Amino acid sequence: MPEITITFLPDNVSVTAQRGESLLRAAHAAGVHINSSCGGQGTCGKCRILIKSGSVQGGKTEKISDHDYEKGYRLACLCHALEPLAVEIPPESRLHRGVLDRKLSDKPTGRLAPTLSIDALKTRQHRLLVEKKFMNIDPPTIENNASDLSRTLRALKKQHTIENIALDYHVIQKLARTLREGEWNATATLLSAATGLLREGPGSERLINIEPGNTAGSHYAIAVDVGTTTVCAELLDMNRQEAVAEASDYNRQMKYGDDVISRIVYTQKDDGLHILQKAVADTINGVIDVLIKKQKIDRQDISHITVSGNSVMTHILCNLDPRYIRTAPYTPTINTLPPVKARELGINLGSHAYLSAVPLVASYVGGDIVSGVLASGLYRRKRNTLFIDIGTNGEIVVGNREWLVTASCSAGPAFEGGGIRHGMRAADGAIEEIRIDPDTCEPVVFTIGEDKPKGICGSGIINIVAELLEAGILDQKGKFKTGIRGGRVRRGSDGMEYLLVPAEKSGIDGDIVITEVDIDNFMRAKGAMYAGYQTLLESVGLAYSDLDEVIIAGAFGSYIDIEKSIIVGLLPDLPTERFSFIGNSSLAGAKLVTLSPDLWDDAMQIAGKMTNFELSDNKSFMDYYIASLFFPHTEIRDFPTVMERLRNIEKCAAETQRHGDKMDSTIDSNISIVGEKKIIE
Amino acid sequence: MPEITITFLPDNVSVTAQRGESLLRAAHAAGVHINSSCGGQGTCGKCRILIKSGSVQGGKTEKISDHDYEKGYRLACLCHALEPLAVEIPPESRLHRGVLDRKLSDKPTGRLAPTLSIDALKTRQHRLLVEKKFMNIDPPTIENNASDLSRTLRALKKQHTIENIALDYHVIQKLARTLREGEWNATATLLSAATGLLREGPGSERLINIEPGNTAGSHYAIAVDVGTTTVCAELLDMNRQEAVAEASDYNRQMKYGDDVISRIVYTQKDDGLHILQKAVADTINGVIDVLIKKQKIDRQDISHITVSGNSVMTHILCNLDPRYIRTAPYTPTINTLPPVKARELGINLGSHAYLSAVPLVASYVGGDIVSGVLASGLYRRKRNTLFIDIGTNGEIVVGNREWLVTASCSAGPAFEGGGIRHGMRAADGAIEEIRIDPDTCEPVVFTIGEDKPKGICGSGIINIVAELLEAGILDQKGKFKTGIRGGRVRRGSDGMEYLLVPAEKSGIDGDIVITEVDIDNFMRAKGAMYAGYQTLLESVGLAYSDLDEVIIAGAFGSYIDIEKSIIVGLLPDLPTERFSFIGNSSLAGAKLVTLSPDLWDDAMQIAGKMTNFELSDNKSFMDYYIASLFFPHTEIRDFPTVMERLRNIEKCAAETQRHGDKMDSTIDSNISIVGEKKIIE
Repeated sequence: MPEITITFLPDNVSVTAQRGESLLRAAHAAGVHINSSCGGQGTCGKCRILIKSGSVQGGKTEKISDHDYEKGYRLACLCHALEPLAVEIPPESRLHRGVLDRKLSDKPTGRLAPTLSIDALKTRQHRLLVEKKFMNIDPPTIENNASDLSRTLRALKKQHTIENIALDYHVIQKLARTLREGEWNATATLLSAATGLLREGPGSERLINIEPGNTAGSHYAIAVDVGTTTVCAELLDMNRQEAVAEASDYNRQMKYGDDVISRIVYTQKDDGLHILQKAVADTINGVIDVLIKKQKIDRQDISHITVSGNSVMTHILCNLDPRYIRTAPYTPTINTLPPVKARELGINLGSHAYLSAVPLVASYVGGDIVSGVLASGLYRRKRNTLFIDIGTNGEIVVGNREWLVTASCSAGPAFEGGGIRHGMRAADGAIEEIRIDPDTCEPVVFTIGEDKPKGICGSGIINIVAELLEAGILDQKGKFKTGIRGGRVRRGSDGMEYLLVPAEKSGIDGDIVITEVDIDNFMRAKGAMYAGYQTLLESVGLAYSDLDEVIIAGAFGSYIDIEKSIIVGLLPDLPTERFSFIGNSSLAGAKLVTLSPDLWDDAMQIAGKMTNFELSDNKSFMDYYIASLFFPHTEIRDFPTVMERLRNIEKCAAETQRHGDKMDSTIDSNISIVGEKKIIE
Repeated sequence: MPEITITFLPDNVSVTAQRGESLLRAAHAAGVHINSSCGGQGTCGKCRILIKSGSVQGGKTEKISDHDYEKGYRLACLCHALEPLAVEIPPESRLHRGVLDRKLSDKPTGRLAPTLSIDALKTRQHRLLVEKKFMNIDPPTIENNASDLSRTLRALKKQHTIENIALDYHVIQKLARTLREGEWNATATLLSAATGLLREGPGSERLINIEPGNTAGSHYAIAVDVGTTTVCAELLDMNRQEAVAEASDYNRQMKYGDDVISRIVYTQKDDGLHILQKAVADTINGVIDVLIKKQKIDRQDISHITVSGNSVMTHILCNLDPRYIRTAPYTPTINTLPPVKARELGINLGSHAYLSAVPLVASYVGGDIVSGVLASGLYRRKRNTLFIDIGTNGEIVVGNREWLVTASCSAGPAFEGGGIRHGMRAADGAIEEIRIDPDTCEPVVFTIGEDKPKGICGSGIINIVAELLEAGILDQKGKFKTGIRGGRVRRGSDGMEYLLVPAEKSGIDGDIVITEVDIDNFMRAKGAMYAGYQTLLESVGLAYSDLDEVIIAGAFGSYIDIEKSIIVGLLPDLPTERFSFIGNSSLAGAKLVTLSPDLWDDAMQIAGKMTNFELSDNKSFMDYYIASLFFPHTEIRDFPTVMERLRNIEKCAAETQRHGDKMDSTIDSNISIVGEKKIIE
């Protein structure tokens, strides 16, 4: 087939593609990112592009309005290059680093969750997961000419009381030279057996490297949270026993689909697993490069990388076909990874460095959750804790120091902007908060980075729906009420919608709206989460009131508003002081286990003792789910404070209707409970 | 540099070489074998070639007589190609398979040593070093969707009571597919941890492979003796627990030098280690190919290869620089090899197959000796046993079930034909026996394969020297007596010599002689061995008379004549019934440990408990060595039967001198003790 050149704007990157190739594939080949939630199935509508010159075939779907089609908008996955092209990737289809560098500490609101501290361990003479040990080895003599290996093992035993050492063949290849080069001074790097070298119990070690002289002063490891969307890493100084640098990036798998299911689907294509494995390994490599540069260290001084990720991310990174995770009965290949050299997975570290993965619990309860449970310390406390990570795949843990149960529920992509007309990931320009004047029904819109609005992020949707409810614009079934003043509620192409930002004020080429279809999708998502908590609590005979603590984990969770989330029924109606945020507890867990094999043992035990409830075919779950498709919930007794509030609104509205505009102050005072709080926070 | 073509005859192999390249290197490049004991240093004189057409530069040394030089003989290592050449490799410079396929059972003489039998173990429900275990795995259900790995490990535990399994990352890569392909029937291959996976104790296993369905019926392993000269292997059917095929070949390292020292020297050249590693790996691969073809098995059904070799062979095969073995204080890098995949060492087996090496004791006491001690069972007996492997590097063990001491002595290459003018390795045409008529001093010559004589092999030298002594031609200092009748004793280029075969009856282009220099070299070699036994016995306070058994191991040892060896002082003067032959006990040991991890544990214990005496700087050894430079020995009381015999010969000779030829019958009757025995045997 003839080849043609495609130039992607605004970055001005050109690629040679075969005639007829889809523009999404051509962009992949060029390393150019175009958002694509569904991974190129033509269903999500996120890969909008604008043809600036040249002609293409296809790309018209219901996701592109006639008006936009006229202008040259297409879906990149569905249109094919016929001749040389200039293609613009509009803002809504780009990745924006923006929030990548946001930290939980930057968040002005919410209580921080209690976490396990490594400091307590530091006071003891505790071992690290990887350690360097300097040795002064007896040189051989004619009377004692035991092998180099024997001398080394003897020195480790005598000088460091380390015995029972397993060892890597590659260490012995350089052993003789190393010992002599350092004039019988050498530094051994030892990896604790805690990391899932299955049968090796705690206390035993594996000799993974030997260096001439004393190099013990420079020793690092890496902890990584491998998220479906972002990869966040910390460089750990093993001598200081703390993180000394951090870096993050979007997971380069993103262009192959937003959620784990679309990633699994992609792995089933020719070479798909290899492509996705390389994408995430490359992401990790990029992040490692940043860490090395930031701290000006030698790559060879990094001996270990601990990854913590959900089951699909862990499987793909480890080159394991994830297909059986997706289909009933949802079986992962492994929960505990056997020892593997980082290089074998394409991770650019020294040939001695190992990669370990925080153990998984089940197909949809991964190492990220085990890390979270570990980092929160909930498994050590007497109190009943609900630990939740809200997302496309919502993960839920209930437990205390006696027992742990877990479940995951497929909430759908709404929390990450999927299935929402103008949904987008949390990035600059994403609407994360609005305030609606109940008089005029006009909104004030707040965006991330204070950019021009480009779309709505997940935490924004919660906020919008709660505001619409409290302003009396939306009813509890998620339908817009009739007769709303101001003209913001109108009929659009997907039925009724509320105009958030008119085209002239938006950062995209059109109005930004929230539709009844969007709200319906959001309702299903929050309903699935809530039904998940309920099913799990029921399974252990607890009620919400028995919960002493609710910990909200994850990037998405960090930015939600507790009260608004209760109003929409995403969170249970408990006193706000019982809620706390833990941020990226997957990364925190990965760090903790790297600094302490004892905590790695804890992680293994957490993974082993957590009972997983499979919700997908669970009768109770389905019943609870149906009951949750209401704002906040059909079981109104479970939401007393919300009902109280909404009743007040109804009352006010009724009075307003009776008394004209005189009672507006009443509504204001009600709303200000939330409004004021937001402002103060 | 311009390139020229060199054709090697008689195989008619052509190679393109750079002008000026040595013919030995050109032959290496062409894969053509030319004997070369010294590895191309120009010192051994074994790489004689005959230039048939074209001209060369150099190649004249004292090793080539003027007469031969005229004819076109050169040393291949010292002469350089100037133009297109036809080069003949004469018989004495070729390798002859001949004796490679000889077996100990073919040997008509000598008592076989008692050996450990696997049959005793077979009766117990004993484990093999590698085992296949068929499993019927519970398919996952929504109620029980534990990981594939958990199900597999559970099946191994429930169905085979195998727990505490270490596992290879690569197994999990194909686990999901394999389990489903076999519809939850699968076969696991397990490697016992006995093989030097240091810290894993007996009873634990490593999961190295998984196959769909039931493949347990076809399971093989390979045992290899990696000798400096030959590589001998057996294919072991793990179900029948016995060897089902055998094959052997010359070690392809041979062309880089005959003995371990010249091999070590070669490894220090650029890429030398890699070249020698590849040479021995290729040899092993060739032998494996033969075994697979003989038995018509699938290569994938071979799960393990056990190698047994001296320390240098083991180090080189394992890609470990052997340089420190050679120089004081003679330190090996390892005695026990950590687990290594066979493929990593270039061994052409399935990606799951491991290579293990029988553990070493010290730089010059290798796995071959540990194997020998194991196979002989001497470490389990109460009796005191002397175990010897005679060769360039002679190895000696003394011990019983309580203790084991060992030493190695550098005897020089005389036993393998090195340093002997017409010495050659045991191959067709090698003189292995002569009988001298004491009247005429004329010899009757016997060769291997009954070919025309081409040279003298090691066992032949013993025989010749003993005959010369007993015929009164040679004195006890190793000098030819004057006035020997018949003209066979004459002055040659190296001083006095005895003509064994005149040119017209030989298979080479000249006379075959044994010189005083040859005999001197042989005396040093046998002296070193004998001094070794003495030093070792002294170290444990034993005398020869305390020895209940003398076991002679190794390819060379298998063909020596006990009585002749006593006469020359190579073996102690003990009743012949105390001597026995064990043949290739290195191979036997490799086989035993592969069929039984218990025996592997024994091998580890033997290696660990054997006390090594370093003879090279040992004062006693030097004294004993000097005392041994006499036939049979200066300490004549240690050789009562030999002295008795030689005294009779002296007496007869004196009487002969006095009475002319009348007393010939007396001499005859003396000689016939040996002669008859030879014939009967």
